Amino acid sequence: MILFDYWRSSAAYRVRIGLALKGLSPEVRAVNLAAGAQRAADYRGLNPQGLVPALVLDDGTVLSQSLAILEYLDSVVATPRLVPADPVAAARVRAAALAIACDIHPLNNLRVLSYLKGPLGQAQPAVDAWYHHWIHAGLAALEQQAEVFGGPTAPTLADVCLVPQLYNARRFGVDLSTYPRLVALDAALTTMPAIAAAAPERQPDAG
Amino acid sequence: MILFDYWRSSAAYRVRIGLALKGLSPEVRAVNLAAGAQRAADYRGLNPQGLVPALVLDDGTVLSQSLAILEYLDSVVATPRLVPADPVAAARVRAAALAIACDIHPLNNLRVLSYLKGPLGQAQPAVDAWYHHWIHAGLAALEQQAEVFGGPTAPTLADVCLVPQLYNARRFGVDLSTYPRLVALDAALTTMPAIAAAAPERQPDAG
Repeated sequence: MILFDYWRSSAAYRVRIGLALKGLSPEVRAVNLAAGAQRAADYRGLNPQGLVPALVLDDGTVLSQSLAILEYLDSVVATPRLVPADPVAAARVRAAALAIACDIHPLNNLRVLSYLKGPLGQAQPAVDAWYHHWIHAGLAALEQQAEVFGGPTAPTLADVCLVPQLYNARRFGVDLSTYPRLVALDAALTTMPAIAAAAPERQPDAG
Repeated sequence: MILFDYWRSSAAYRVRIGLALKGLSPEVRAVNLAAGAQRAADYRGLNPQGLVPALVLDDGTVLSQSLAILEYLDSVVATPRLVPADPVAAARVRAAALAIACDIHPLNNLRVLSYLKGPLGQAQPAVDAWYHHWIHAGLAALEQQAEVFGGPTAPTLADVCLVPQLYNARRFGVDLSTYPRLVALDAALTTMPAIAAAAPERQPDAG
């Protein structure tokens, strides 16, 4: 397997965590998002969306979208199980993961912040306010539902999404003091060797 | 079951399609997003995110996030199967669904367009350009991968997301002529009675 990765991509960070939890160590190739490598024709040929991550299986099959890749990994490597077998428990875990992956992260990723600064001509304070607004809207709801996360004893798809999102929030200076349950979960999760090894600063392309 | 719905919500529209394909007819309660009913304390008590849809099961369990609800429905009602059993086929279907649900729709929903107009002070032409930008970025990639959709003979989770997204694109005047495969899929899918019945204009709260 080959993982097309970028150290600071939250979506790629999720997949790095999932792979490490499953004990998988694919070859890693960095796609430098800051330099626009995701828009190059060769990468677009691999993933028409021009986003990371992409996971290329040994038979050449290309998988994209972090949550789809994580569900795939959960299907082919049984433990630890990221999505519970029980349909209601699975729905709750997926809902928490999607609350991050659909309702926080897409509003705050690099291409969107670039659009705010470029075509919309927004100055940094307005961009920061935008970033903080969507983080707080999302995390406030998750703090009320923190029991859905499994923590280090039973990390789920939701846990896999939480750690990169809190990393990103800190990077942008978001005050997390009103989310004590999420902060405690993150602190416990990031002590796991598999999750610690997936941290952005520990990737070969970290700059 | 009770579906908390809003006629113009793309996410709710997805769940209406899924329910209809599975032959389920829950009680429906409208949450008037245009009037801010999703922010009322009673609805927030049900779904802390303050988003529609939410599906309340007969035992009172509340499910949120459209894709999590659809996966739940797929677990409890076997046919038609929205996510294929094969792990690679499932990953492709989920990736196409997520390309809509994560990378197009969250950038273009009501709360985001309101933020652009309010705090960011953008005029309607700039808001429209934003809307069109993210639609085209997403649909261009999906047009290249249109074989992943099942169409009316075997509608998948991806098909369930496509129909509301194209409805929304048309509502905002997006030129879809460069996406002939997606337009043909949508035309075929919307001839299915279950999908036709889920259309926004056919809901009781349509205004």
